[in-house]
Amino acid sequence: MKENIKQRILEKGAEIIHRKGYNHTGIQEVLDAAGIPKGSFYNYFKNKEDFGLQVIDYFVAHFDGLARETLGNHSFPPLERVGKFLDSFIDFFRSKQYTLGCPIGNLAQEMGDLSAPFQKKLKWAVDTMAGHYIRVLSEAQSRGDLPQGLDVRQTAFFLIMSWHGALIRMKIERSPEPLEDHKNFFFNRIFAK
Amino acid sequence: MKENIKQRILEKGAEIIHRKGYNHTGIQEVLDAAGIPKGSFYNYFKNKEDFGLQVIDYFVAHFDGLARETLGNHSFPPLERVGKFLDSFIDFFRSKQYTLGCPIGNLAQEMGDLSAPFQKKLKWAVDTMAGHYIRVLSEAQSRGDLPQGLDVRQTAFFLIMSWHGALIRMKIERSPEPLEDHKNFFFNRIFAK
Repeated sequence: MKENIKQRILEKGAEIIHRKGYNHTGIQEVLDAAGIPKGSFYNYFKNKEDFGLQVIDYFVAHFDGLARETLGNHSFPPLERVGKFLDSFIDFFRSKQYTLGCPIGNLAQEMGDLSAPFQKKLKWAVDTMAGHYIRVLSEAQSRGDLPQGLDVRQTAFFLIMSWHGALIRMKIERSPEPLEDHKNFFFNRIFAK
Repeated sequence: MKENIKQRILEKGAEIIHRKGYNHTGIQEVLDAAGIPKGSFYNYFKNKEDFGLQVIDYFVAHFDGLARETLGNHSFPPLERVGKFLDSFIDFFRSKQYTLGCPIGNLAQEMGDLSAPFQKKLKWAVDTMAGHYIRVLSEAQSRGDLPQGLDVRQTAFFLIMSWHGALIRMKIERSPEPLEDHKNFFFNRIFAK
């Protein structure tokens, strides 16, 4: 029960932080959205920062689940899984009228300069996301589906970073084009042998 | 004189918005920093939004100046100019301990979802930045320095977007590595024939 309440706070917190950023999200607003009585927040979190850091854990756990499901689905060849994974995000953003962006990228933009604990946690988040891509790209490379000279680690980070940039452009274009361009660029120019 | 005062407000506003974002920047704070008496703001700007939009013009004019100076410097071959241009930004961010990021990328992240006039102005800003790269990359391609199959327009936008993403990672890594990786990735994998 206690874990359920905490989970509900994190879930609503994640939703609101994704939409409004960390600084603009009030604890009371999160508790209202979760239908949790005022005052119980501090049973679960030390303070707003502790809550924010745990929301990042929540985002990463969510990404891990999606990545295992799609990038880890061995019924498809590795690069096809990467394509499907990117497409699933394009579908998600279509359903959100090309708003929001990646919560990790947004928080890195918002908090990266300002808070050492956030900076450390966000670095861990990006490293974890990259880990999934490193695995699937290594698998592709060892099958001969990627150029042998490609540095898989660097490519994985470049994929995440350029995706964050494409999401920034998606927001001002309000269109899927930047995300589609990103995918095509990788498949046609970077993954191509 | 009137133009000098306005320019001073924009200059200080740009500096503070670059550091703190648009929403966290107060008009009074900008006027204090510029040493302009309270109340004179509305002689120059209709409201805070009008001011914010003109700060974007200021950022773009600054970028235009840098781009003309380096990307437009015909004493060097076009791709060498692109390398020098990226290096000059890496030097700038080194001097800022790898904080701040690109003001246009930051504002797109912060305001892209929220305000139609900002969205339109930021789209224009990115298109203008891309225009400089399109020109220099076209020049490179017509000299035979780039693969003939490379879509120069798409590449220019991809360069800007992935750079914005690299800046996000720079902030959480507090290191030049993401920017250097970005540059190497372009030169070794995308520009390579």
